[in-house]
Amino acid sequence: MTAANTMTTQAKPAPGRSYLAIPGPSVIPEAVLSAMHRPAPNIYEGELVDMMPGLVADLKRVARTKHHVAMYISNGHGAWEAALSNVLAPGDRVLVLATGRFGHGWGEMATGLGAEVEVLDFGRSGTIDLDQVNARLQADYAHQIKAVMAVHVDTSSSVRNDIAALRDVLKAQDHPALLMADCIASLGCERFEMDDWGVDVMVTGSQKGLMVPPGMAFVFFNDRAEEVRERLPRVSRYWDWRTRAHATEFYQYHGGTAPTHHLYGLRTALDMIHEEGIEQVWRRHTTLARAVWAACEAWEAEGSLRLNIEDRDLRSHAVTALRLQSPHATELRNWVQENLGLTLGIGLGMAAPGEPAWHGFFRLGHMGHVNGHMIMGMLGGIEAGLSALKIDHGPGALEAAARVIGGEG
Amino acid sequence: MTAANTMTTQAKPAPGRSYLAIPGPSVIPEAVLSAMHRPAPNIYEGELVDMMPGLVADLKRVARTKHHVAMYISNGHGAWEAALSNVLAPGDRVLVLATGRFGHGWGEMATGLGAEVEVLDFGRSGTIDLDQVNARLQADYAHQIKAVMAVHVDTSSSVRNDIAALRDVLKAQDHPALLMADCIASLGCERFEMDDWGVDVMVTGSQKGLMVPPGMAFVFFNDRAEEVRERLPRVSRYWDWRTRAHATEFYQYHGGTAPTHHLYGLRTALDMIHEEGIEQVWRRHTTLARAVWAACEAWEAEGSLRLNIEDRDLRSHAVTALRLQSPHATELRNWVQENLGLTLGIGLGMAAPGEPAWHGFFRLGHMGHVNGHMIMGMLGGIEAGLSALKIDHGPGALEAAARVIGGEG
Amino acid sequence: MTAANTMTTQAKPAPGRSYLAIPGPSVIPEAVLSAMHRPAPNIYEGELVDMMPGLVADLKRVARTKHHVAMYISNGHGAWEAALSNVLAPGDRVLVLATGRFGHGWGEMATGLGAEVEVLDFGRSGTIDLDQVNARLQADYAHQIKAVMAVHVDTSSSVRNDIAALRDVLKAQDHPALLMADCIASLGCERFEMDDWGVDVMVTGSQKGLMVPPGMAFVFFNDRAEEVRERLPRVSRYWDWRTRAHATEFYQYHGGTAPTHHLYGLRTALDMIHEEGIEQVWRRHTTLARAVWAACEAWEAEGSLRLNIEDRDLRSHAVTALRLQSPHATELRNWVQENLGLTLGIGLGMAAPGEPAWHGFFRLGHMGHVNGHMIMGMLGGIEAGLSALKIDHGPGALEAAARVIGGEG
Amino acid sequence: MTAANTMTTQAKPAPGRSYLAIPGPSVIPEAVLSAMHRPAPNIYEGELVDMMPGLVADLKRVARTKHHVAMYISNGHGAWEAALSNVLAPGDRVLVLATGRFGHGWGEMATGLGAEVEVLDFGRSGTIDLDQVNARLQADYAHQIKAVMAVHVDTSSSVRNDIAALRDVLKAQDHPALLMADCIASLGCERFEMDDWGVDVMVTGSQKGLMVPPGMAFVFFNDRAEEVRERLPRVSRYWDWRTRAHATEFYQYHGGTAPTHHLYGLRTALDMIHEEGIEQVWRRHTTLARAVWAACEAWEAEGSLRLNIEDRDLRSHAVTALRLQSPHATELRNWVQENLGLTLGIGLGMAAPGEPAWHGFFRLGHMGHVNGHMIMGMLGGIEAGLSALKIDHGPGALEAAARVIGGEG
Repeated sequence: MTAANTMTTQAKPAPGRSYLAIPGPSVIPEAVLSAMHRPAPNIYEGELVDMMPGLVADLKRVARTKHHVAMYISNGHGAWEAALSNVLAPGDRVLVLATGRFGHGWGEMATGLGAEVEVLDFGRSGTIDLDQVNARLQADYAHQIKAVMAVHVDTSSSVRNDIAALRDVLKAQDHPALLMADCIASLGCERFEMDDWGVDVMVTGSQKGLMVPPGMAFVFFNDRAEEVRERLPRVSRYWDWRTRAHATEFYQYHGGTAPTHHLYGLRTALDMIHEEGIEQVWRRHTTLARAVWAACEAWEAEGSLRLNIEDRDLRSHAVTALRLQSPHATELRNWVQENLGLTLGIGLGMAAPGEPAWHGFFRLGHMGHVNGHMIMGMLGGIEAGLSALKIDHGPGALEAAARVIGGEG
Repeated sequence: MTAANTMTTQAKPAPGRSYLAIPGPSVIPEAVLSAMHRPAPNIYEGELVDMMPGLVADLKRVARTKHHVAMYISNGHGAWEAALSNVLAPGDRVLVLATGRFGHGWGEMATGLGAEVEVLDFGRSGTIDLDQVNARLQADYAHQIKAVMAVHVDTSSSVRNDIAALRDVLKAQDHPALLMADCIASLGCERFEMDDWGVDVMVTGSQKGLMVPPGMAFVFFNDRAEEVRERLPRVSRYWDWRTRAHATEFYQYHGGTAPTHHLYGLRTALDMIHEEGIEQVWRRHTTLARAVWAACEAWEAEGSLRLNIEDRDLRSHAVTALRLQSPHATELRNWVQENLGLTLGIGLGMAAPGEPAWHGFFRLGHMGHVNGHMIMGMLGGIEAGLSALKIDHGPGALEAAARVIGGEG
Repeated sequence: MTAANTMTTQAKPAPGRSYLAIPGPSVIPEAVLSAMHRPAPNIYEGELVDMMPGLVADLKRVARTKHHVAMYISNGHGAWEAALSNVLAPGDRVLVLATGRFGHGWGEMATGLGAEVEVLDFGRSGTIDLDQVNARLQADYAHQIKAVMAVHVDTSSSVRNDIAALRDVLKAQDHPALLMADCIASLGCERFEMDDWGVDVMVTGSQKGLMVPPGMAFVFFNDRAEEVRERLPRVSRYWDWRTRAHATEFYQYHGGTAPTHHLYGLRTALDMIHEEGIEQVWRRHTTLARAVWAACEAWEAEGSLRLNIEDRDLRSHAVTALRLQSPHATELRNWVQENLGLTLGIGLGMAAPGEPAWHGFFRLGHMGHVNGHMIMGMLGGIEAGLSALKIDHGPGALEAAARVIGGEG
Repeated sequence: MTAANTMTTQAKPAPGRSYLAIPGPSVIPEAVLSAMHRPAPNIYEGELVDMMPGLVADLKRVARTKHHVAMYISNGHGAWEAALSNVLAPGDRVLVLATGRFGHGWGEMATGLGAEVEVLDFGRSGTIDLDQVNARLQADYAHQIKAVMAVHVDTSSSVRNDIAALRDVLKAQDHPALLMADCIASLGCERFEMDDWGVDVMVTGSQKGLMVPPGMAFVFFNDRAEEVRERLPRVSRYWDWRTRAHATEFYQYHGGTAPTHHLYGLRTALDMIHEEGIEQVWRRHTTLARAVWAACEAWEAEGSLRLNIEDRDLRSHAVTALRLQSPHATELRNWVQENLGLTLGIGLGMAAPGEPAWHGFFRLGHMGHVNGHMIMGMLGGIEAGLSALKIDHGPGALEAAARVIGGEG
């Protein structure tokens, strides 16, 4: 991912507002940035200390759980490790259901902790084959598999997996493995019902649907998971979710010094989410995603552009991965960057063997602080780029998107 | 202009970034806001004091003049009064060439100072008729007209007048009247050559092409104008441009306490303009305006939407005024506001007798800190609104705009 | 006031927080700066428009008046001119009561408008001699004097004049002249009761007790003053207070484009003032001023440092002017600037004939967003500077100040 | 550390600037906050990616090392765990030299990772007894002790330990244990020479001498330490310093998504440090600490106030712990908080058995973005509080401090 690899020539920034339309970090609301622009607060008493119970409650409302949340100063990779550290001992076996790069990544984190990691790989353009999962669990008559790990939305492929259905498979087999979900790219964007869907452990980060700069991550867990943790002989102090989730002193929430400024940003972001209403947040993401799809499907009619996930029911509402004849994808990204100040996401882990790394893929982020004029600006910028670079594409894309935003389709 | 009049129901703000696409105040760059977010500086020595000569020079470069500039803590109306106060004594006659509301407004300011104001009114959809001006000046054999006042771009009608041609008329008649231009809506957007075009006095504000919040305004003047001022018996202390333009102490630049934070914002904005290059700034505005026109002309093909200025050569590159069957214009503005967080400009002074105040007009700002994805977002938002409200309009607007931004047309 | 004159060698800023302890602009609260760090708002409807009636009411509460206020985008000099423009016609006579530079300055503004200006000069270290004023008014049997102009606190001398007593003099003579007060350096710091004291016109600015960056100024007036304005044949449009004070449309409040960002800053500052309570704000300024005086009076015991105003009852609670053997004052200012990041105010208009401009004077601002640790930091910085420069001074200054802040004295 | 325990009644904030004078988080420079107030940047290419090599180099310059640094999104506790995770396997033995709460805390982190932790406890008011350390190492003929862990400055006791002398002890015994130093409260404040002093591993955080909000922490290590890590069978992926310190791709520096906004803040803070010069930064802290000591030693002359560390040579230059007859310490903290907006640090882990938790202790932070007027403000505020509460104390404290800042002593 070096600059050279991405074929970009360094240029001074384009005039006008920049628009970072990558699948995370997402666009940060002004109000969140303003909330973080403040002197260091007291960390022993006062406003920040008093704010914590409400923050915890409002985080849980986003995740739709009545259970527990542990906050970490870390990125999503840290939350991956934190979650695993609380439920796995070295030598424990886990089953990873991979539908893109991030499933594999989480699995590697488990390997790093000494777990035996078994991966079912469902490719880079499809979802989890529940029959395969069912078969594997059935074969595990000794219940050696301690956890089944799945990514709700894999940011690299933009597939959205059906986590509720996964729980049904576990239930059908009466398998005691914990169901662990990575919602880093989906929480605050996609419908996710932690308790109703029977998810035992869920991890997410601050920088996507939660609209806060990277630097905090969260592990949600229920009582089943907590019991597992209690039976572990040792959990590292920093990752131990016990004191964090059941803090009685302020410093325990964060295992030491609090991420003071992120907490203020998070407070503001949660206010925005709950003021809009989490159900409405999901609806908004659905509409905007459909607008993106309508445009992309129109472009698909001519030329080489293709949505990575063909089936609408399997597509994320927060990110869209696209293929475009190499090196057009990179050329397009570069053109909109240099001419419009619009940054599109690079392809991640999507290249077939022999292909140049990612010049045939790109991704659109439409998560968090987004609305109709932003999406039309992103799509309009792509249309301008396709036109400027004379890359073949079907007509009518923008009007199709506008119709969706206008309420049709 | 009360809320009731504009038919808007108060609603909580739409999610996502808001976009203020009105013809001023324009979108303020993050860098400008950041530059203004600072403790109060010393006003007697140090950085701010040392910054002034460069600021003056860089302002003049935007106006393409080697002559003088006086800065005022005021809005554009203040600059209007300031400019007039330095060249008119009560009883002096001026000729106002009105092509929309703002020409009339400037004339009223002259009346308020005791001048005899004569208005040639060229309507709300056209430009100055140079023959009429020529005839009027020819008739003024006694040279009673002390100044000819014209608006470069009238924000209400979005007409762009030919200031250079106006100078030619004065020259042809060898008329000594000062040529005064209002560039409030054009400076930093449209080509303007103060010295080459022979403009004697020019006024502008901070909040449009200069991309700084409202609160500063500027009067540029040349030596001819300065001679007129020197012959006046009295100029009010606050408006007197002499000490401001020829300041030897810091406080003289601003006739008292300096607008400290605006100066930092202005410094940053001028840096942005000159880093891009003023010629390139003009080219960018031209391209984006053509994209707007391409979309509007496509919409015009069906239904009632009409560009207020038919002739492309007379259209502003910074603002576009449109007609849309009342009350569709207001409905459209309200829809994009409430659903997309996109604010379009209301019509100003455009209603025919008997029409409801402005429900049949709206305006688009495309001035200052704008680029291709923003314009596509604004146009895409309008397309979505037209679709949502089932307002008839021609097809292909967005793709036509995208092609222009992509380099065609 | 050039850099050379102030004997300062340019240096990189001292580490740590800077502290601008000059008598305006004053220290701007973080909350005010944050409120101003926002995108440009809509100026036709919405939050900003809706905010105005409350803003007007809260401004009047600070001035203790039930009458009218006109807001101006200008500095204090602009407010001076605005106030005079609404009550004077050319040729009208005014009586200026000068107790320092700013009284003279306001008088010059009246001269600039064509008024006949008569100055009673009470020097640079004392207050108004009411007997002289009485005598002059008595002599004006024809009531040619249309207005009596006085500065509440003259920032240059730090004298605080008794405005209520001035009204008594006018009343005793039954003189119809308007009583006009300049509260630029006192409003929001010193007790000021516009209605109770019978002040007809009062001017102030945003950048001192109101804690907002320079760029707005205010003219308060009562019905008597309004009647005078109504009888004037002509008031310039920009300065006319009528439409501003009785606005029915948003743009009328500001005579054109609103100072959008200052309005948000002002809203926040007024919230802070009224949350603390205006009476408590005055008490706080009184206590802090007494702490400053306690220190200065201790320093006076040895060496050349002298408070410019000897009588405590005549001293401002917002600014303190001091004498210190030239060039020690400048050396002290330079030392605390370069070594501590503490900026003290220069002397203004205080030098006796033959003295170097201001190297024997300096001023301390203690207005607006100040508290006990700030004042102790300012005084402690001066003590350090006196010590470093081996400038003679009496002992016990800091402990005397601390005792006042601690509640004694 | 609940609000109830600290005896504080919740009150609205005191007017004026707040001053957080606790030993971390420290006062954050405006410039750092401004640098963090920005849209999310691209994390795949561009400015942020290009900034990393310089950032790494400038971090190493602060630590005076030519070796390696790994950055973590975490607080200091995370850095503790990270450092230990790279050099310890479960069962390894470490020797903790405790001089206050934080030495014990680091040891607990090692316990949490499965290490055998041996603590030499030197109390809460003194430094490490090198003879004891020498004896213990001598006894370890089998070299079972893999690491010696010491805190440079223990924030709870404010003792400053001699890390160079500790290396001499190890060297004298030719003991191969790694020397690990916690510089969380000292880096960027106290002279620290990682390479010259032979420190193998050093940890620090962003929120004290580095003047950035909490949320990043750093582990510096040399080649000896790296060899230890290479021999470990397994290091968790998140804590593994290898990829972070030898990153070839941007995401590797941070083990996933970068802490984008903290990186900009850190860039600015490092610029400030190196512009001042790290040696000068240390000198400034030394001077300011001596000023604090001068005041405290004067106060000690009467009443119960006592510096926790008697020996000047053992005192930190960044934090000062004080005893004051319970509950005066808490009363004093509360008084300056409520009346002056000045926040002093609570005592941490200092109470003797049977004493109320911390009402007899408090701490002063004087680290990072501090200067002479701030220190005088803090000390002046304390003097005012002592006076208000009629707490006995010796005279002359403030003048003594001012003399130090003025260059004497």
